[in-house]
Order: sequence, then C-alpha cells, then structure tokens
Amino acid sequence: MKPEPASPFATTSTQFTPCAVVTLITDFGTRDPYVGVMKGVLLAGAPAVRIVDLTHEVPAHWPAEAGFWLARSFRYFPVGSVHVAVVDPGVGSARDIAAVLRDGHVFLAPDNGLLAPVVESSTPRAELRHLDLDALGMRPASSTFHGRDVFAPVAARLATGRLQYEELGPVVPELVPGWIEEPVEKPGQITGAVLTIDHFGNLITNIDARSLQGRGRVRVRVAGRELDLRRTYSEVRPGDYLALLNSFGVLEIARAEGSAAVGLGLERGAPVVVSFGA
Amino acid sequence: MKPEPASPFATTSTQFTPCAVVTLITDFGTRDPYVGVMKGVLLAGAPAVRIVDLTHEVPAHWPAEAGFWLARSFRYFPVGSVHVAVVDPGVGSARDIAAVLRDGHVFLAPDNGLLAPVVESSTPRAELRHLDLDALGMRPASSTFHGRDVFAPVAARLATGRLQYEELGPVVPELVPGWIEEPVEKPGQITGAVLTIDHFGNLITNIDARSLQGRGRVRVRVAGRELDLRRTYSEVRPGDYLALLNSFGVLEIARAEGSAAVGLGLERGAPVVVSFGA
Amino acid sequence: MKPEPASPFATTSTQFTPCAVVTLITDFGTRDPYVGVMKGVLLAGAPAVRIVDLTHEVPAHWPAEAGFWLARSFRYFPVGSVHVAVVDPGVGSARDIAAVLRDGHVFLAPDNGLLAPVVESSTPRAELRHLDLDALGMRPASSTFHGRDVFAPVAARLATGRLQYEELGPVVPELVPGWIEEPVEKPGQITGAVLTIDHFGNLITNIDARSLQGRGRVRVRVAGRELDLRRTYSEVRPGDYLALLNSFGVLEIARAEGSAAVGLGLERGAPVVVSFGA
Repeated sequence: MKPEPASPFATTSTQFTPCAVVTLITDFGTRDPYVGVMKGVLLAGAPAVRIVDLTHEVPAHWPAEAGFWLARSFRYFPVGSVHVAVVDPGVGSARDIAAVLRDGHVFLAPDNGLLAPVVESSTPRAELRHLDLDALGMRPASSTFHGRDVFAPVAARLATGRLQYEELGPVVPELVPGWIEEPVEKPGQITGAVLTIDHFGNLITNIDARSLQGRGRVRVRVAGRELDLRRTYSEVRPGDYLALLNSFGVLEIARAEGSAAVGLGLERGAPVVVSFGA
Repeated sequence: MKPEPASPFATTSTQFTPCAVVTLITDFGTRDPYVGVMKGVLLAGAPAVRIVDLTHEVPAHWPAEAGFWLARSFRYFPVGSVHVAVVDPGVGSARDIAAVLRDGHVFLAPDNGLLAPVVESSTPRAELRHLDLDALGMRPASSTFHGRDVFAPVAARLATGRLQYEELGPVVPELVPGWIEEPVEKPGQITGAVLTIDHFGNLITNIDARSLQGRGRVRVRVAGRELDLRRTYSEVRPGDYLALLNSFGVLEIARAEGSAAVGLGLERGAPVVVSFGA
Repeated sequence: MKPEPASPFATTSTQFTPCAVVTLITDFGTRDPYVGVMKGVLLAGAPAVRIVDLTHEVPAHWPAEAGFWLARSFRYFPVGSVHVAVVDPGVGSARDIAAVLRDGHVFLAPDNGLLAPVVESSTPRAELRHLDLDALGMRPASSTFHGRDVFAPVAARLATGRLQYEELGPVVPELVPGWIEEPVEKPGQITGAVLTIDHFGNLITNIDARSLQGRGRVRVRVAGRELDLRRTYSEVRPGDYLALLNSFGVLEIARAEGSAAVGLGLERGAPVVVSFGA
C-alpha cells in the first residue's frame, strides 16, 4: 500500500518526512536492560538512526506525565522525528496503539490517554490513527514487552522511510481522553494544580503561560503563601520562593537554590491559585 | 597475525563481522563520568561506532546479574555487535579478561564468572579466549579502571575491524564458572530462586520458560501464595499477584500495576517453587 | 568575521578543529526531559554530532564538582570535542558565559567558577573568552533554560565548523575563580579534603597524585585511621580500607568490595592528611 500523493494544500501537519531521529520516553527506569534492547531493535532495523532518551523515569503506569512532557518538548527536535512513548499498564490487553501526526512529527504510544496533550494543543488538528498490527505484519513475540516487539520495529521502519505514516493503520476520529484535569477559570482567578515535580524540586503546574497574559498583576497562592511572578530564579535571594512562567510555557513554583517541593511539603495534585488584579 | 580463512562449514558462531555497535553493561552507575570517559575512548578509536547502554546499575561487584541480562538481551542487537561487560572487583589483580564469540556477537568481560550464562546457553558452543594484553600492545594506564584503559580501546578496534576476534589471545577450554545456582528439579516440581528484581518490582527468577512447557497445569508457590500462570499483567485486577513467562524467557512473579517485591517483601534469592499437575 | 590564520608556532591549545563530538555535564538529573531537549537542539543544528553524557547528577547548583570531573576527563575524548557544562544557579542574571580553548578542546559553561580546574591545570595557558550573545545572534527564548536556548545551539554551530572558537566573543584575562580549596602543604605533610564521593562510595580527594611522588613512604590519615598506599583495590581483603592514586590522578580512599563513605561515615569536605617519611 502506497500513501496517496500529498495535497498541494497540505500543511506540515499532514506530511511526514523522516529525519532519522527517534526519541524515547518510558516508565522503564534504567536499572534493567529494557531500554537498551529497544535500542538494539531500533539499530538492527535502522542502522543510521539517532536515538535520544527524553526520560525513562516517568512514574510507573502514569501516562499523563509522559504526554505532558512530550507535548512540551517535541518541537525542540528536528521535523521528521519519531517520538515513541511507552507507559503501558494495559500491555497485552485489547488496548490499541495510537499514532499521531502533528507538525511533521510522528508520535507512537499506547492509546491510553498518553497522547491527549499532544493532540489537544494542535492547530491544525493532528491526524490520528490506530496501528493495524496484522497489516504491518507484526506478531508481537511477547505479551508483556511491546516496546521491544512492536514500538521499536515500527519506529525503525518509519525512521528509515520504509514505512509511511499513512500505512500504519486506519484513521480514527478520537483517541482515549487524557488524564490531566484542566485548570478551572473564574472571573479574576484560575485554579490549577501541581502536575509534576522536577529534579530540582520545582513544582510544575497545568496552568499555561498564555492564560496569564494581559490580565494585570498576577499573584500566585500556594501552600498558604502568596508569590509574585518573577522572570528567573536569581531575582530572589537563595532560599526564597518565587513563581515564574517557565521555559516550557507553564506556571512553575520554585525556590532559589533549593527545592520548593521539600520546602513547601507539596506533592503532585496540590492546588495552585492565580489571581489577577491591580 | 591474520585470522585463518573461514571454513565453508563455519556457523555464524565462529565468525565475527563487526557492525559498529558496542553495548555497555557495568556496575559504574551514572553519577560519575566513568561511563562517559569509556565512551570518549570508544569514539576516539572508532568515530562511527554506535554505543548503547544496557545498564550501569548492576549491583556493585555482582557479576552474575550482568551475565544473566547479557545472555537474555544480546540477540536483540545486530549480529556483529561487541558487548562490553565490566563488573570487576578483581581489577588490577591477576584475573584474566575473557572474550567470547557466540552467534556472531563478541563479548568482553573480566573472567570472573560474568560470562557463564552467555557460554552455557550456546549451541554450537561459544568460542572462548583470554586476552593477551602484551600481544595487543595494551599497557593499562591504571590498575583500577580497565573499562577505560583496556576494554574500551579493544572494543573500538574490534568494532572497526582493525582487530580480528582471533587476534585477541589464545583459545581457552573453560572460563571461571558462574555464580548463578541452577534450579533443582524433582518429579513434578522445580525449585528455583529470585535472581533479580526489576524497576517495576517484578521478581525475575532463574527458572527457564522451556522447563515448564508441556508439563500440564503449572502452579507457582512464592511467599506463601499459590499463583496460576497468566499471559500478561492485565489479566488480573490491579493489585493482584500473578506468575508469567516473561519477555526474556524466564518465570516472573508480578503484581498488576504494583510492585511484587514490595508487596511480598521478597529480595534476591527468595525461593520459588513450581509444581505441575492436573 | 574569520579567524586569523594559525601561527606556525601555534600549539594545539590555540587551535580548534571540530570532531563532531559534544559532551554534556549538568545538574539536571534524568527524570525530566531537560537533557533530552538539549540533545534535540544539538541534533537539529548538527545532525551528525555524537553526544556523550558525562553525568547529569552533579549536586544541584554545585559547579565545583562538574569542573573537577571535566578537567580530569576531557583528555579521554577526541581532540576537537566541545564540552558543555551547565550548572547554573545564576541563569537569567547578568552572569557571563565562558568559553575556554585548551589542548584542542573547547569548553562552554556559565562563568561561575565551574571551569577554573580546566584553566588552572593548563600549560600553555588556556585561552578564555566571554560569549557575545548579541554578536552571535542569540536571543535566549527563556530566562531559565540557557542549556537549551544558548549552550546547545552554540555547541552545534561549533561542532559543525559553522562557528569558529574565535568568533564566540572577546578574549578575557580571567574567569570567575573556582570553589575548590587547594590542599595545604607543610613540611612532610599535605592536608586536603574529600572532594566528591563516587557511586562505589570511594572518597575522591583534592590531593593530586604528583604531589606525593618521590617523597618517601606515604601514610594517609582519615577518620582516625592510618592507611598505606596501595596499587589497586584487590591488594587488601574485602572489607578493608585502602588509599590509592586513582585512575584520574588524585588520592582516593576506598574499601575493597564495599563503600568507604558508608564505612567511615564521611561526607564531602572531610579532611585527609598525608604524611611522608621513612
């Protein structure tokens, strides 16, 4: 099966030209060789592929975090990259495998809500497919490790141009919805939550920077404190807390040269309230 | 010294044609630059080599685990790969360095039992050598870091074809035996042990899947529980325990969306008993 | 602006010919995609670049350790490598970005003392510059992630030869001084300190191996013990402590097949006294 010729009106969203880069994001950790054997399969099928680890420390079985980071990270990779995300508690069950084409990048993941943040933020809307494993000639060798037995060989074929995005399987209208709650807006106020905590203990929220723009002075309430919005960490003294719009375009609570998570005693899900005013 | 021409009856086991892939498995961890400088030496000697980390979190000074994973992982890499394993409590002592040629792959490791699982499972039997450091012109710069000063430069020369497997040193009849105890078989029963615990808390045993085939219904006893054999994690409810034949071909005890190791309070070495019957 | 032709008397220290290798050392950890997106930017700007992680687990905001390891590691990489070090508590402030050319390698880091160990040990003296971001056409997209928005694109241009070292910005006479205290020498004695603790629990000191040579019998006092100097770990029985001159050229306190840090209860900064005598 050959893909149909690209429409002259096609945007980059509907075209995929591989650049031989594959990124990996999983919950596999790095103490077992699970990620390594995925790379072995990638190199066996695509000897010239460049493989980049996004992270393998997504909380086990928590696809939402992988999707959040993927949606915020993919545009720093060359157009034509294949992004493989495997956080897959349903491996071996009847769950589908989703493929998404957006802005010239392809994303592969279990259809369990992981890719929702990639799809939701797309304009024009991303194209969604379900892998047809039979048509692809894929008979997974295992029921427990599709990262190695499905995702890696399919990504290798995409990255080398031996398989076209359009050949992956049928277009589907929707994927399984995401797990991340959207912030709640009220007049003069947005209530969101801590979505993840990074290596430095910075609290990364689900509140998009764009929702704060042009609304006057911003005050952020978290853990009983009220913080002004700063531009960077070094604007406050070491040990002080601050709020800022971070380099991935979301509101972040930080502590200069320290851990906000430890200092404030907060975890994923903690509420963060932004108010606007004079 | 040039290798002898390949026999027309040679199997792939006795031939090595490098594919410019090198894998690394060590107990070095990733917080120091030890793995990084090994890669520097590899790139200095073999600029086009592709390097894949299997893992660097093997328990310190526990070669058995590296050998188990290597024997179960190598076939997912292209034929012609060089696999470097450095778990080396005897570095700087009189211990030898072993080289193994199996199924078109070369393995390098201290001769301390690490490579036993790679050799034991080979048919036809792998070819074994000891490195002749003098003949190779290797005078290690250090007595404590042969990963950087011996393994990496030798692997670079093998991976680029500047050094043939046959030139590494003399053939030896045996390597130092392995550290992993074999399961004990009795009529209707196999008693094995937990060999390692993965990132998800799955308990990975030394019981090979093939020893369970065609023997009727399988029951697995571990930590006072009796478990049936399942095909995949999602066949039981979240929190329930299960046994399965995992994607690396051994019996595994797991907990759906949880950690069997934490839930059952088990560590490496815990006994696992398989019984067969109606 | 083109660099001036190389002087016929130029040493390798004053010439940089890229070899398309970039190393990374940061305090970013690996649980977030921060390192991954830096690699995305590198690959977007330099598709053929080879990227090696030195480590991403430098203690947060502690540039001294990154500089120590970089100065002791860089010569294991090919001449022409670009070494990017980002431990950057002052990101977004007025701090400069330093570039150092030494022995044919280029180093990029915030000018916060990180590169002092690289400069101090250089003969002939390394050449020092400050990046001129305006002249380089760099307008960082963020105030908080210059690793992605400045260091990675500049390294990509250097590694591909599209940017010459001399074009980075003006020569400066000095960089910000380092954070590492030098050992104190008295007749017959050197007092240093534990600089870092590696994955194995080895205590790595700031006492250079060369300062111990030719001074008679060496005794090392640490945590109330007196240790003789050994050649390698396997010269003492498992569990025993030893001192040795390690593979990176500094004095190290170790415990055979164990952790000296745990066994002796020591942390970074602990004093280590070397005495010489009959």
